Amino acid sequence: MTHGHNHLFVPGPTNVPDRVRRAMNVPMEDHRAPDFPGLTLPLFADLKKVFRTGSGRVFLYPSSGTGAWEAAISNTLKPGDRVLMSRFGQFSHLWVDMAERLGLEVICLDVEWGAGVPVDQYALHLSADPDIRAVFVTHNETATGVTSDVAAVRRVMDAAGSDALLCVDGVSSIGSLEFDQEGWGVDLAVAGSQKGFMLPAGLSMLGVSRKALDVAAAAGSGMPRCYFDFADMIKANDAGYFPYTPPVQLLHGLRASLDLLLEEGLPQVVARHHRLAEGVRRGVDALGLSLCAVAPQWHSDTVSAIRVPEGVDGAEVCRIGYERYNVSFGAGLSKVAGLVFRIGHLGDLNEVSCLGALAAAEMALADAGAKVDFGAGVAAAQQHYRETAAMPAVAA
Amino acid sequence: MTHGHNHLFVPGPTNVPDRVRRAMNVPMEDHRAPDFPGLTLPLFADLKKVFRTGSGRVFLYPSSGTGAWEAAISNTLKPGDRVLMSRFGQFSHLWVDMAERLGLEVICLDVEWGAGVPVDQYALHLSADPDIRAVFVTHNETATGVTSDVAAVRRVMDAAGSDALLCVDGVSSIGSLEFDQEGWGVDLAVAGSQKGFMLPAGLSMLGVSRKALDVAAAAGSGMPRCYFDFADMIKANDAGYFPYTPPVQLLHGLRASLDLLLEEGLPQVVARHHRLAEGVRRGVDALGLSLCAVAPQWHSDTVSAIRVPEGVDGAEVCRIGYERYNVSFGAGLSKVAGLVFRIGHLGDLNEVSCLGALAAAEMALADAGAKVDFGAGVAAAQQHYRETAAMPAVAA
Amino acid sequence: MTHGHNHLFVPGPTNVPDRVRRAMNVPMEDHRAPDFPGLTLPLFADLKKVFRTGSGRVFLYPSSGTGAWEAAISNTLKPGDRVLMSRFGQFSHLWVDMAERLGLEVICLDVEWGAGVPVDQYALHLSADPDIRAVFVTHNETATGVTSDVAAVRRVMDAAGSDALLCVDGVSSIGSLEFDQEGWGVDLAVAGSQKGFMLPAGLSMLGVSRKALDVAAAAGSGMPRCYFDFADMIKANDAGYFPYTPPVQLLHGLRASLDLLLEEGLPQVVARHHRLAEGVRRGVDALGLSLCAVAPQWHSDTVSAIRVPEGVDGAEVCRIGYERYNVSFGAGLSKVAGLVFRIGHLGDLNEVSCLGALAAAEMALADAGAKVDFGAGVAAAQQHYRETAAMPAVAA
Amino acid sequence: MTHGHNHLFVPGPTNVPDRVRRAMNVPMEDHRAPDFPGLTLPLFADLKKVFRTGSGRVFLYPSSGTGAWEAAISNTLKPGDRVLMSRFGQFSHLWVDMAERLGLEVICLDVEWGAGVPVDQYALHLSADPDIRAVFVTHNETATGVTSDVAAVRRVMDAAGSDALLCVDGVSSIGSLEFDQEGWGVDLAVAGSQKGFMLPAGLSMLGVSRKALDVAAAAGSGMPRCYFDFADMIKANDAGYFPYTPPVQLLHGLRASLDLLLEEGLPQVVARHHRLAEGVRRGVDALGLSLCAVAPQWHSDTVSAIRVPEGVDGAEVCRIGYERYNVSFGAGLSKVAGLVFRIGHLGDLNEVSCLGALAAAEMALADAGAKVDFGAGVAAAQQHYRETAAMPAVAA
Repeated sequence: MTHGHNHLFVPGPTNVPDRVRRAMNVPMEDHRAPDFPGLTLPLFADLKKVFRTGSGRVFLYPSSGTGAWEAAISNTLKPGDRVLMSRFGQFSHLWVDMAERLGLEVICLDVEWGAGVPVDQYALHLSADPDIRAVFVTHNETATGVTSDVAAVRRVMDAAGSDALLCVDGVSSIGSLEFDQEGWGVDLAVAGSQKGFMLPAGLSMLGVSRKALDVAAAAGSGMPRCYFDFADMIKANDAGYFPYTPPVQLLHGLRASLDLLLEEGLPQVVARHHRLAEGVRRGVDALGLSLCAVAPQWHSDTVSAIRVPEGVDGAEVCRIGYERYNVSFGAGLSKVAGLVFRIGHLGDLNEVSCLGALAAAEMALADAGAKVDFGAGVAAAQQHYRETAAMPAVAA
Repeated sequence: MTHGHNHLFVPGPTNVPDRVRRAMNVPMEDHRAPDFPGLTLPLFADLKKVFRTGSGRVFLYPSSGTGAWEAAISNTLKPGDRVLMSRFGQFSHLWVDMAERLGLEVICLDVEWGAGVPVDQYALHLSADPDIRAVFVTHNETATGVTSDVAAVRRVMDAAGSDALLCVDGVSSIGSLEFDQEGWGVDLAVAGSQKGFMLPAGLSMLGVSRKALDVAAAAGSGMPRCYFDFADMIKANDAGYFPYTPPVQLLHGLRASLDLLLEEGLPQVVARHHRLAEGVRRGVDALGLSLCAVAPQWHSDTVSAIRVPEGVDGAEVCRIGYERYNVSFGAGLSKVAGLVFRIGHLGDLNEVSCLGALAAAEMALADAGAKVDFGAGVAAAQQHYRETAAMPAVAA
Repeated sequence: MTHGHNHLFVPGPTNVPDRVRRAMNVPMEDHRAPDFPGLTLPLFADLKKVFRTGSGRVFLYPSSGTGAWEAAISNTLKPGDRVLMSRFGQFSHLWVDMAERLGLEVICLDVEWGAGVPVDQYALHLSADPDIRAVFVTHNETATGVTSDVAAVRRVMDAAGSDALLCVDGVSSIGSLEFDQEGWGVDLAVAGSQKGFMLPAGLSMLGVSRKALDVAAAAGSGMPRCYFDFADMIKANDAGYFPYTPPVQLLHGLRASLDLLLEEGLPQVVARHHRLAEGVRRGVDALGLSLCAVAPQWHSDTVSAIRVPEGVDGAEVCRIGYERYNVSFGAGLSKVAGLVFRIGHLGDLNEVSCLGALAAAEMALADAGAKVDFGAGVAAAQQHYRETAAMPAVAA
Repeated sequence: MTHGHNHLFVPGPTNVPDRVRRAMNVPMEDHRAPDFPGLTLPLFADLKKVFRTGSGRVFLYPSSGTGAWEAAISNTLKPGDRVLMSRFGQFSHLWVDMAERLGLEVICLDVEWGAGVPVDQYALHLSADPDIRAVFVTHNETATGVTSDVAAVRRVMDAAGSDALLCVDGVSSIGSLEFDQEGWGVDLAVAGSQKGFMLPAGLSMLGVSRKALDVAAAAGSGMPRCYFDFADMIKANDAGYFPYTPPVQLLHGLRASLDLLLEEGLPQVVARHHRLAEGVRRGVDALGLSLCAVAPQWHSDTVSAIRVPEGVDGAEVCRIGYERYNVSFGAGLSKVAGLVFRIGHLGDLNEVSCLGALAAAEMALADAGAKVDFGAGVAAAQQHYRETAAMPAVAA
């Protein structure tokens, strides 16, 4: 039997703020009521602020982020369409897998797990092959803690004169890391409720550019589809409704979540994530450990995948953390199973939460056989958090 | 500004019992934790009890019921496959529409709205056409309050020697009306969280027979698919996990909901729905109104679509109910828009709730221009409820 | 096993609005935190608006209303002090009992249950006896559904030149019925969270006039006391704190409750209670029943105590309502046990709730042996509610 | 604006477990319903298990613990009764103050803050003065983190042949520290909901021995009282009811809280508190700090009051913790204001929570001007927690 709350550091689902939990605890209501659009239309408007898309729109699907991946593809691409993708972690892998299963002709660039999108190689392919219909980017690879440079991909697309669609998996970035759908020319941007939006899973968001909307609306475009069809959504959404019963509870939660994000301000949200992440990284470094992300340019501010020392099993670190110390770390997945454990530092956390994560990691690592200088990781993070605290130490 | 709670009589989302609401109000957790299957495996087992399928399995999709419709089709049927469907309300219409959009060759039998599946015509088609690959039944047409006879469809399929798949939309029946997946030979049975399961929308259930599982597993079967793919689900579910982040909150709610249903006993649940529905019907009759369902054989125990008198607008009845009396009725949809209003009497309701629905309907009808003998509908229902109350009037 | 929600018509605890329930669902916090007064000081200010006292203050005790009764007495009166009280129901009886047990010399005027404070007799006593130190009024006697005229008591006090304290039990009136502490010269006004404030029990409010505060502050005043002592409260409250750990959850609920009351406007709240009560009374009348309140001047807009016909046991009506129909009525207490049952119509209710109460009452009465014209009570109330609905029947 | 949850380490209100929070989130109900005793009677029975009193009973008051202090006195003692008390912290001080204000003749032994009940001096007084009617013990002085030896007080009472009542303040001990009402011969044992019972404030518990019940029941015993009167409670409680509206929400929470305590087992609860406390103490020691408790015999397992170094303001440590790091520590009260800060380690906490408390304390201390060896306190606690973890590091 465990006591106290489970300290949740998986990189999603993230901790749900109490304000959001309260907002979701609603009785059911008629989703066809005349005042229902009073809830939904501002949600759509505010989601556009978070995605930073003025001319596009954001769809809300009752699905996991995987569903929005499929929506992005099935509305805009046809079987046989050539697309450019790269694979450097479990989630970029799964999107490639989906694209292949849905019949796309995937040019898949495999990259060492620990790096991100190979922009230079993208440039070469784009220059060489004008028939690439879509370019895919996993903005933040949750499995390895690697953030890629979406704007750079847009630049090489433009340089190559490509009119391909730019499709971005922002599931573990949007709402946490800098994201600028319109500025970066992202045509399809996938997000999920259970990451930066600090909601339970069950709602995916898909930001769609004007261009992608036009592509989807063209006669005969995309694949046979119904559940994820843009047209059904547009018709219903424009009036503030949905083509099928929406998850009303999550919509109320999303209202609270958007309020939290917009009240704080997106730049502040991004800065906060960076600060907490940096503390964790300094702690990792002080413990003599390294990240899966092979260079600072790839460092993710939402999740750190930490390499365990030789001879230590990362899965054991997670198991021990969970069973012995009531802490949930993310396990290493697929190619890095056993080689890493992950600390998610996105969403509703603060300094002391992250210090708890490091303290627990130190114990679990030691229990799993690592040599640990106890308190060293915590101390390095403490120094960072003290130096960068928002409130001054001296009372006003 | 309204006061008191909204009296919710739409036929879904239904009222969420307090016990279920409490169960859903959980902090997030790691859906890959070692003890997570302790939650999920019993859910799968108990869902099989509710669907009454021993040899099949029940999938849980983070989607609306529409998603499970699509899952049923895309895993087992190919574009060009000939299927037999019938259309007699908005929801049977939408499933036909989906089937056509997904490329099936649909034999669609149109039936007057107010009746249900034309079993005799099904028999004729099945005898005449051995290439029908699937037969579709909307068990309970929510738009018209019509329940069809699934067992009879199975009988004519068997009589015709059909090996087609029997696909049933049980969204507004399973968990409320009698349903026997295995006994009736249903291959694909669709349900949704927001009806008889008394949960918010966001989770669909798909009961799949052994035969349908085999069809789906055959090489090259079905359509290109990923999000709704059975194989991914099976692989993950067998270990108690999901191929993507599941809506954990709803899973906890489902635990409470299944406990409620199984503690009461499914026959008792069915009887309770019948009793409440019968009271409403007697009230409707006493008010001199008729149901959209044209004969008692079609009467639905989960929703009554009530024809408004000539010269009265059913939409006005709903609007007035909502704005003036804080009551949510279901509006007439599509062909019966304005001609009916609907009282959902499924899920977590009781006698006094239904009497409130009738009392409110009387007022809204009168306000909308109908001649109403006030209290007459209520009185007829009262008599029924008194005569059939579970607890005796005299103390034990 | 019952289904659906219990329809709660006891005259307290009343139904808690969802918004208030959500507001209470908070994690614990430090009640000595620097920002805690940000919660409490506006509560004190807004309570003064509800009590309508400008120069006095309102205390919040972690107790039932009985505690505030005791606080009113123990801070301002001494054993042996002569006080004028009247008794016409269980709650006025209990306050008399408390006064006697605390050593006051009580002049108790017994009145037929069904009438209220005998203002003329009060006038006689006040004229004859200048040593009366306090005059007690049960504003709304919850046991009989009788509202007394506080302003009239103040007038006879003034006419007699009395400087006694005017002590009012407003537990089932404040926040629902018209109440004007300063206008009526009420010195001590008792309220409880579980009535018009639509909160769970556990918090009592005591509005104290400037005069009563001065009396309490005088050297040697009142009785030995500690828990309910004004001085401790004042010292802590002035800074936004409490002398002991306050029920923080209820304070958050009170915030939401006050917002609801003040957003609607107190006159509107009072009018709403009158409208719903009047519908119930018309229903009672149409059923050929009479109220315990013997004349319209005594009619309470928060609770109706309904006399059962000869030969019917009011307790059976309540038992049957609860066990057979999942409805909670208030039972007759003490002298009127078995003779009445009560419908509380205060707090978060609306028309359809009250129609449900009447419909259930009709059934329970019939089951208990009364001759009932089914639907008649409902119909009379329907007519009233239609005629007086806030929203017009015709759309704007 | 702060993010993440506030890390709450005040020694009450303590963190409410999610299971308890859920249990409290109930609609209102009739507290006079026939099945209400089904909730309350098991609560009374299980409270007796937690207090460990077989022949006595436990009262539940809607009040803070201060109310139960008053109940203990006012039901059993008369003005002028001589009682033996000791004072060594803010809460023992307040009980002395109450006793004096209620007219008792208090022999008050003042003890250095940091030590506890002076058992030897109690022995002298008891031997010398057979007229002492009650002996008071603050079992756990929350202000200084000092636990006293109740059993030893009972022994000296017995040795002196005293028939005085033994009154114990167990507000911050019962449900967390070893407590044995019957074994220790405690006559009146006060507890509060917001400490070891892990509930919001608003409910106090008073365990009363058979002897104290007899004393209270004797003609003319105690003081004038009503709200806290035992007799009213007994009469109502025996049937499962209350003399006034009880805080039903908290009763449901108490059900969950008692389930948690009894499922774990009281000895395990006590051991868990000791283990967490010991880790905090080792951390304090490693930081070169000392406790307010002057010797290990006084160490409290529910709260540690930590002396700040010379030149550092303990109030600043608390302020900085709260404003800069979203952590709530207990401030020093009264005589030790500014000299200590307090970490409450009772209730629903675990290792990582306590490590977070130490990490935050290190930062806040440094910010307030202390010289801190960062991570040193955390490391000492980590070692302790690793060595004493319930689950083995190696998987079964």
